[in-house]
Amino acid sequence: MTKSTNIVYHHGDVTRADREKLLSQRGATLWFTGLSGSGKSTLAVALESALHEMGRLTYILDGDNIRHGINANLGFSPDDRKENIRRIAEISKLFRDAGVINLTAFISPYREDRQLARELADGDFIEIHVDAPLEACEARDPKGLYKKARAGEIPEFTGISAPYEAPEKPELHINTAENSVDECVALMIDYLKDNGFLG
Amino acid sequence: MTKSTNIVYHHGDVTRADREKLLSQRGATLWFTGLSGSGKSTLAVALESALHEMGRLTYILDGDNIRHGINANLGFSPDDRKENIRRIAEISKLFRDAGVINLTAFISPYREDRQLARELADGDFIEIHVDAPLEACEARDPKGLYKKARAGEIPEFTGISAPYEAPEKPELHINTAENSVDECVALMIDYLKDNGFLG
Repeated sequence: MTKSTNIVYHHGDVTRADREKLLSQRGATLWFTGLSGSGKSTLAVALESALHEMGRLTYILDGDNIRHGINANLGFSPDDRKENIRRIAEISKLFRDAGVINLTAFISPYREDRQLARELADGDFIEIHVDAPLEACEARDPKGLYKKARAGEIPEFTGISAPYEAPEKPELHINTAENSVDECVALMIDYLKDNGFLG
Repeated sequence: MTKSTNIVYHHGDVTRADREKLLSQRGATLWFTGLSGSGKSTLAVALESALHEMGRLTYILDGDNIRHGINANLGFSPDDRKENIRRIAEISKLFRDAGVINLTAFISPYREDRQLARELADGDFIEIHVDAPLEACEARDPKGLYKKARAGEIPEFTGISAPYEAPEKPELHINTAENSVDECVALMIDYLKDNGFLG
């Protein structure tokens, strides 16, 4: 005997479009890429906060919830780095399909890997090059990683002993050495509004 | 020069609680488990439809979007089956954290694997044993898999040549041979309401 006997519903799949209508937004991936210390997480957190105030549903994928979770069984070999980004791209796709504006904050130094993420996205992919001179990133060194890399304690550290392949045509190129966080957030919100992601 | 120069927002992380408040629901995982043909996908799709009509945000993880996406590089060896379920459990955790009611529809025959998924969930895990006699599942055989398994074309097919370890204490035990889809949906909605998942 159940209580909810008069539930009415369609017998059909709920689609991405249905969820997006419910949320008054379009599912999208904002793919932040840049050197360690360039400001990827700072911008993602600030943008998420602004979007939440606007009543939008967002979710950040970053090292904390990915490297310690689904990708805890991956190391830092070339193959594992590639698989790390592939899984993030696939998870982003699921979140887009759910209607969620998801933000990924990973160095993601290789064009080929970012290209895969873009190809999975059918257009709802916003690559954001979070750019600052290496010297500025190294001076910030929020996690003390540059110091370790310079001391030879971290092999293949992006910008020091491993390449960073800058995006050639990112949707947004943001210089965090010249713009305040608030200015950067405003740029991103403008982009989302202008391109119909905010309903 | 940006247009959105007067954006107001807190400089802090948006939390799971913030997202749940926005959505008027609690993030949860409904983990459907049962034999092939027991009705897992049917119930997940019907429940999602009912919840959507109630204005709730849901997302289904199933073979279509997982096996063809993030888990496309996994086969069916014991290790790969375990890794398949582990990744699904980790993705469910991300969706819970996003505030989304997510539904997983996989046979997931092993208690140990489902236990891992439960342990990741801190209580917001609803194991639903979708139960029907093997004979009923085999008679339905929606994908023709039992026929192939009986012909020896599928090795280690759950219920035929591989074990199904039934849940010992599922949150819900639903018999799809004795209840209509509508009755099953009503049971699940009652559970969600009674346990505070629907705000």
